[in-house]
Amino acid sequence: MLTYSFSASEGIPLYIALYRSIRADILAGKLAPDERLPSKRSLAQHMRVSVITVENAYAQLLAEGYIYAVPRRGYFASAVERAPEPPAHRETILPTAPPEIPCFVDFRSNHPDCARFPFSVWSRILRDELSRREMKLLSATPANGALELREAISEYLFQFRGMRVSAEQLVVGAGSEYLYNLIVQLLGRLHVYAVENPGHVKIPRIYEANGLAVRYVDVDERGMSALGLRASGADVAHISPSHHFPTGVVMPIGRRQELLAWASEAEERYIIEDDYDSEFRFSGRPLPTLQSIDAGGRVIYTNTFSKSLAPSIRISYMVLPPALMERFWRTLSFYSCTVTSFEQYALARFLSEGHFERHINRMKKYYRAERDALISAIERSPLAGRAEILEQDAGLHFLLRVRTEKSDAVLSKEAQAAGIRLSFLSEYQNGPTRAETHEIVVNYSGLDAARLDEAFERLAEIL
Amino acid sequence: MLTYSFSASEGIPLYIALYRSIRADILAGKLAPDERLPSKRSLAQHMRVSVITVENAYAQLLAEGYIYAVPRRGYFASAVERAPEPPAHRETILPTAPPEIPCFVDFRSNHPDCARFPFSVWSRILRDELSRREMKLLSATPANGALELREAISEYLFQFRGMRVSAEQLVVGAGSEYLYNLIVQLLGRLHVYAVENPGHVKIPRIYEANGLAVRYVDVDERGMSALGLRASGADVAHISPSHHFPTGVVMPIGRRQELLAWASEAEERYIIEDDYDSEFRFSGRPLPTLQSIDAGGRVIYTNTFSKSLAPSIRISYMVLPPALMERFWRTLSFYSCTVTSFEQYALARFLSEGHFERHINRMKKYYRAERDALISAIERSPLAGRAEILEQDAGLHFLLRVRTEKSDAVLSKEAQAAGIRLSFLSEYQNGPTRAETHEIVVNYSGLDAARLDEAFERLAEIL
Repeated sequence: MLTYSFSASEGIPLYIALYRSIRADILAGKLAPDERLPSKRSLAQHMRVSVITVENAYAQLLAEGYIYAVPRRGYFASAVERAPEPPAHRETILPTAPPEIPCFVDFRSNHPDCARFPFSVWSRILRDELSRREMKLLSATPANGALELREAISEYLFQFRGMRVSAEQLVVGAGSEYLYNLIVQLLGRLHVYAVENPGHVKIPRIYEANGLAVRYVDVDERGMSALGLRASGADVAHISPSHHFPTGVVMPIGRRQELLAWASEAEERYIIEDDYDSEFRFSGRPLPTLQSIDAGGRVIYTNTFSKSLAPSIRISYMVLPPALMERFWRTLSFYSCTVTSFEQYALARFLSEGHFERHINRMKKYYRAERDALISAIERSPLAGRAEILEQDAGLHFLLRVRTEKSDAVLSKEAQAAGIRLSFLSEYQNGPTRAETHEIVVNYSGLDAARLDEAFERLAEIL
Repeated sequence: MLTYSFSASEGIPLYIALYRSIRADILAGKLAPDERLPSKRSLAQHMRVSVITVENAYAQLLAEGYIYAVPRRGYFASAVERAPEPPAHRETILPTAPPEIPCFVDFRSNHPDCARFPFSVWSRILRDELSRREMKLLSATPANGALELREAISEYLFQFRGMRVSAEQLVVGAGSEYLYNLIVQLLGRLHVYAVENPGHVKIPRIYEANGLAVRYVDVDERGMSALGLRASGADVAHISPSHHFPTGVVMPIGRRQELLAWASEAEERYIIEDDYDSEFRFSGRPLPTLQSIDAGGRVIYTNTFSKSLAPSIRISYMVLPPALMERFWRTLSFYSCTVTSFEQYALARFLSEGHFERHINRMKKYYRAERDALISAIERSPLAGRAEILEQDAGLHFLLRVRTEKSDAVLSKEAQAAGIRLSFLSEYQNGPTRAETHEIVVNYSGLDAARLDEAFERLAEIL
């Protein structure tokens, strides 16, 4: 007869202790496969525990498959392999996010200035939505996002980007990166994607992580070259015509028309218009989007609130041409919308009550002042006369062309040693770069103005 | 000389009106490519507007590429194609989400009971987090999620699932569907995925939307058959050992060991353990997970809060073996975490303060009562004696095996006509099904108890 002894001090229920002991015996082979276990009653008597205790232990063993029951015959041990050696105490140091290296001034990354986010308004709307909608906030929204949010985005696009877009053409998702993944699934996997060269490093990574062929097409002073695009054999072009990163080039109307003509020449050619920082144009009216002159239904417009509101707010959207929207419902609407509904409702109100517009206007003024301060600092620094500022009209970065004999890699390293994080245009370039020119990509959101003079002095010394 | 007339009543700035007129002329070919525009000063004099007005109009035309400037010579019209015909007024009726058909009783879908969600606690935590963290809520979290949330999940998994998992092994994302997409990118595209047959319809759709080969492997009374898995040629098996949908089968320990042995036989074989409703087990202790007996680092454990909290809360997580976590940082950490940070912090507190546990316990009691009411209703209905209830120990559904001469398709249709939405086990089956047995998948969360008697009478009539 099986027998086990338990100290009551273990602090776990008796039936669990019994279950564990029998399980250990089965795993160790002490109870052979198909060996019969004592009846509940006899084990209970033998061990002086209640029948319920044995019953519970057997039920758990049964549920997990350590024993099986045969009607009117009782319980039997299952054929279970010997327990695997417990995993050797893992010395593996688990990888974590790489630590941020502190530095004196970081021109390499934008640090969106969260301190200027209208936190009290956002928080008031969230609180208000929580009280007002209650249960509705817990129900899922349609696959393409809450109607209220899509309507508010549609109205915003009309008012501020001159786009006539129906709420039914909009798809909301948790970040642009997510939406690009969705676009790949929407268009199918037989497409070749062209990306801008130089360009954002993340974009080709996303397509490559999806196992797709990516072509790097050169950007000239008018944006992605139509000639290069044709030569690349790509079917889908991912471009940022409003404001190219990192060169800052704005695509002129003539080139836009060339690209639309390219798209219309064959079935299933598409242009992904990445409009991610178009809000921050400092002079004149916002530029019309490619989407708004697309008569053929070949442009997929994408934009995000993560850049314009706060990096932690993961809400982006895309505008699909009607034929692709129909395909979305047919092939991808089984996916749940990735944005929690109450954030969608809160953003809808933030847009429709005008808070977003006011926030953007404030930020434009603020960023313009930041840019001006930076340019003044350059002009009064030892760099003046040795550096040229390019494409400073929009977005949150400009190019600083410097004259030096050193390579970009050497400059980066020496600057890093001096506490200054730099990135060069050449880092965003796939393939060979011109060694004779050196353009620093200066990201200016979130810089400490008091440190600029010192930073440029250090930089001038390195050059 | 160009000349335009504007009525001041148009309500738009003069420079915009001038910009539009010149743009229209360029698009219509009235201003030929490379034709010189009048100087700003002369056009201003001629039109009796200020030079600033002309300057602003020219600046906008320049920015958009309709004109170009030649230093010391002036402005010239760009070569722009004739404007495309404005898109024919689109009669296209844009597709929308398919409407829900109202019915008397819906056994087909679970309607998680949001009314039982501890809304006031959740809302209090959110409000509190908003006040307490303020700006921190606006900064992005690491690619794998906020540390606070990962620590809270790790602690929860230890307390309630007996899993020893480091917070560094956890990846948080906006829903399980998103995480499966991430897994595809993590493992690479050369794998063949096996899914359970019958099984959740969404799972193979996700892999197929990613362009992957999917094999349907039969589920027997012990879960996915190891023999079938071997024969399928798959490298990755997506299974739900704790509680299979729709059969309700719990995979016994012996079968679990067989599958782990299968995984260890070759490099790059993995098991995705989909534990999505393991919280709702009604008797005994929660079953140990496959992950917790995986000595070889081949199990990717996934679970979600969308099922256990509310469908609109899009937060899921996965536990990666150390080697895959290292690969995640190397290949996929360029992706931003898809969950907004303040939701992550709120959920972290909801877990660590014990609210989640209390919620699950309340829901278990409530669902058990719902299930019991449903079973009583069946037992006192004309169905009694003609139907058999299977696998009722866990989750939010059980099977009702009915005897009838009609096919499942006919039954579905006739039930629908009687206001009753049904789904059959056969609908979750890929390929031929046994025509002689009929199992209704009865989802019982959110049913109206007062309608059950009537519903089963109608159903009995149809059978």
